[in-house]
Amino acid sequence: MPRLCRTFQTAPAAVPREDSAKYLRSGLTAEGFALPDWLVPDLEDGTAPEMKDAALENTVELLSEHGEAFAGELWPRVQWGYDSERARDRGREEIETLVREVGAEIDGVVVPKVGRAADVRRALDAVAEFERTYGHDEGSIELSIIVETARAVSDLSEIARLGEDGRLAGLVFGPVDYTAELGGREFDGSRPTWPALLERLSNEASANDLVAVGGPFDQLFEERAGVTFYNGDAYADQVEREAAVGLDGSWSLHPNQTEQANRIHTPRPEELRRDVGRIEAFQDAKSEGTGAVSVDGQMIDEATFKNFANTVETVRRIHETRPRQTDERFDDALLERALALDTEW
Amino acid sequence: MPRLCRTFQTAPAAVPREDSAKYLRSGLTAEGFALPDWLVPDLEDGTAPEMKDAALENTVELLSEHGEAFAGELWPRVQWGYDSERARDRGREEIETLVREVGAEIDGVVVPKVGRAADVRRALDAVAEFERTYGHDEGSIELSIIVETARAVSDLSEIARLGEDGRLAGLVFGPVDYTAELGGREFDGSRPTWPALLERLSNEASANDLVAVGGPFDQLFEERAGVTFYNGDAYADQVEREAAVGLDGSWSLHPNQTEQANRIHTPRPEELRRDVGRIEAFQDAKSEGTGAVSVDGQMIDEATFKNFANTVETVRRIHETRPRQTDERFDDALLERALALDTEW
Amino acid sequence: MPRLCRTFQTAPAAVPREDSAKYLRSGLTAEGFALPDWLVPDLEDGTAPEMKDAALENTVELLSEHGEAFAGELWPRVQWGYDSERARDRGREEIETLVREVGAEIDGVVVPKVGRAADVRRALDAVAEFERTYGHDEGSIELSIIVETARAVSDLSEIARLGEDGRLAGLVFGPVDYTAELGGREFDGSRPTWPALLERLSNEASANDLVAVGGPFDQLFEERAGVTFYNGDAYADQVEREAAVGLDGSWSLHPNQTEQANRIHTPRPEELRRDVGRIEAFQDAKSEGTGAVSVDGQMIDEATFKNFANTVETVRRIHETRPRQTDERFDDALLERALALDTEW
Repeated sequence: MPRLCRTFQTAPAAVPREDSAKYLRSGLTAEGFALPDWLVPDLEDGTAPEMKDAALENTVELLSEHGEAFAGELWPRVQWGYDSERARDRGREEIETLVREVGAEIDGVVVPKVGRAADVRRALDAVAEFERTYGHDEGSIELSIIVETARAVSDLSEIARLGEDGRLAGLVFGPVDYTAELGGREFDGSRPTWPALLERLSNEASANDLVAVGGPFDQLFEERAGVTFYNGDAYADQVEREAAVGLDGSWSLHPNQTEQANRIHTPRPEELRRDVGRIEAFQDAKSEGTGAVSVDGQMIDEATFKNFANTVETVRRIHETRPRQTDERFDDALLERALALDTEW
Repeated sequence: MPRLCRTFQTAPAAVPREDSAKYLRSGLTAEGFALPDWLVPDLEDGTAPEMKDAALENTVELLSEHGEAFAGELWPRVQWGYDSERARDRGREEIETLVREVGAEIDGVVVPKVGRAADVRRALDAVAEFERTYGHDEGSIELSIIVETARAVSDLSEIARLGEDGRLAGLVFGPVDYTAELGGREFDGSRPTWPALLERLSNEASANDLVAVGGPFDQLFEERAGVTFYNGDAYADQVEREAAVGLDGSWSLHPNQTEQANRIHTPRPEELRRDVGRIEAFQDAKSEGTGAVSVDGQMIDEATFKNFANTVETVRRIHETRPRQTDERFDDALLERALALDTEW
Repeated sequence: MPRLCRTFQTAPAAVPREDSAKYLRSGLTAEGFALPDWLVPDLEDGTAPEMKDAALENTVELLSEHGEAFAGELWPRVQWGYDSERARDRGREEIETLVREVGAEIDGVVVPKVGRAADVRRALDAVAEFERTYGHDEGSIELSIIVETARAVSDLSEIARLGEDGRLAGLVFGPVDYTAELGGREFDGSRPTWPALLERLSNEASANDLVAVGGPFDQLFEERAGVTFYNGDAYADQVEREAAVGLDGSWSLHPNQTEQANRIHTPRPEELRRDVGRIEAFQDAKSEGTGAVSVDGQMIDEATFKNFANTVETVRRIHETRPRQTDERFDDALLERALALDTEW
């Protein structure tokens, strides 16, 4: 069962404001359902070119201060580019600084715009090199990549199998760069959603025990009749499509999105109640020796059982580290049943 | 042109009833459109753990009794698991028993939960070994696999190319296990349907002359206003989606489903009439030296011609071994025309 | 940025009419938006078997006469078949004649019905051989293939990487043969559209700097209430779906389709106006040192910027060689702004 990554929240690590670390600070101190599972201080596209140095300083400073107390994982995104040696040099410098200064606080680094498998190997080698240089345990600093170039998608199976060595941890979709590279276009205001690629991303992540995450949704606000409001419906639609095909989590650009995605990637109360009930009915039948069981007109076999067990195990995983979220979402009796259950077939 | 497999009907090989072989017996004695092209005595998920021995005994006994008379193919599904040596050991024992006892009656075995290509090779080797040990002709006992793990999907091209040696015969989709492994979820009561995977399954099967079959549909019954009835509409929708992308057949869990899927995977009378007419018009034009022909406003070239020929050849293939079905479905005059036609371009 | 190929117009190179080169001539002398970016004299499926010799003669004659003046590219389609030595022999002969007689006029040849990568290598070798024999510069005559067999789709990544040597230039989808080979079928009058394959075709083309083109739409005319009319809506829907996922162009069977596809694959005036405005706003902000910019409520980062730059660069590419088209489509002021802009991030 892969690790928890319902939300992958990027925060620009420096913005042209009085407190240039405003968004980073707010991510690091979020609570409840606004707490992202992965917080990603963004040194890349979210930070303006002239603020890159400030972004790295902010990241080092705030992760030193808040890193240990932060309940989620910390994954700075550095610069990179399969087609730009300059970008890769910057990325290597950023990785070195992060590993040297806050290597104990970060879980890994996120590397964008990777190309074919050979380029991903370069990124893996850079992390390994600085991990060794600065005395961290082998494999303690992981790598996630943004899948956003045609070359990376072409080599996706081979890239995902690099996960067998243990350092590669996540595949994150980057639809905006991807659409630009393929020359995709908007019609009637809708951009291409790349459903076949999402299926494949989910598959390759599962085949190699990696985390899979969908892409950002940047139409944060909508205007209607002169009023601007948070565009929650469209984001929820996207997150549900991602959860349906088995992505572990969704990209968040805003605390509101984090609240939504954390909730959508957590089983619904009625979903938990239904699946707990099915497992209990099955276990009762098994202990009575009845064998296969039909519940609500559906026969329960090992394959369907696994889907029910998934629901329960996800809730348990959340409960272990985010009890405030499970306590808020489920009534006590149901949560007790979920925790007490035997989920072995 | 691949073999006939419009229906892949699994029947639990032992159920906790007075006649534990009830469903197996009913499959073996079905007639007309209820006769499945492939009948799959299920020793795996369809049979409760404590009935596995009875399931193997029933299969041996009933296939000995009815196998020779059965007009379709016989493909027992054994236990297996890329991630479970215990399951593979059981699977090998089941394959050995089946090949030894009813090796002449079965067309092959169905192996579920295979992983990467190396695991499929293990299954191929097991069949080859027992085929040799018990003196059957080389290649006479084939293998079909259930594609239901992320690893198998990741290696699908390589796995399908194993068909070049002739023993691998079919790729069958297993969406329930697959969805559990990827962590997919239901929203608004709909499960993910994996359309990109179905396209690829159909492609790899065609590239290697294998049969391709869709996954089971287990919401067999619906309840509305207190009345429970057979859920034929939703199943037909699924079967049509599968036929559209070129799957040879659909999975059936019930004789009603077999009746439906056999019909849907048989050309419709108006489809046969239209395509026979187009081919006749084309052949007339060719013999008059007119060259390219336009029928119903559509130009007929070699590519469109092949699609019309597919329709006719499928009907002929069915007619060869299931004349009751073609006689019931088509009027005599149309069937005569389809049989008499020259389908060469 | 790949070359211009908004339209891939096939013209039967010989038809049973008084002027057997009627369609070819009309393609070669088309003007304005009816001028195809690529004109494809069709020696294959569009030409009846008994007119193949005339087709080759017409192609040689008309390309000699009009080739130099034609503003687009010229790409005759020859015969071929991964499963037919006879078809490949004919294809080689046709390639030889074309290279010998009009090697300076053609940009490349289109080879249909290729199979696995090894078969595409055979086609590449044939072109290279005759290019050398008849004294043309190495690589001056390119190859595009029709992707229309299960084997080619299975090997698509490997085939597309053959583009690294520079001769392979384009991947064109052939849905009619493809559907026949997979055994796909129509339901409710709709044929399968293979969306997952289109995503992959677009990806592999982009990963290897190839042109990607969608398949033909042959329901050219519709009849309603006794009146037959051009079926422009359905074709536009298909072309928009292709443009959305980043295909460079669409297949055209008729000058009307060429007019439509050229227009759809050209940015809309409001699209150009919007993206020019966004880039201007971004460049202003950059020169004022403001860093990241939000325009119309959307933050502009390097990834979104690339999508806007795509729009502008496509217009410039068209303007270079087809100024009549850009002049007709955009008002002078807007075009001036697009040409003057700095599209570097």
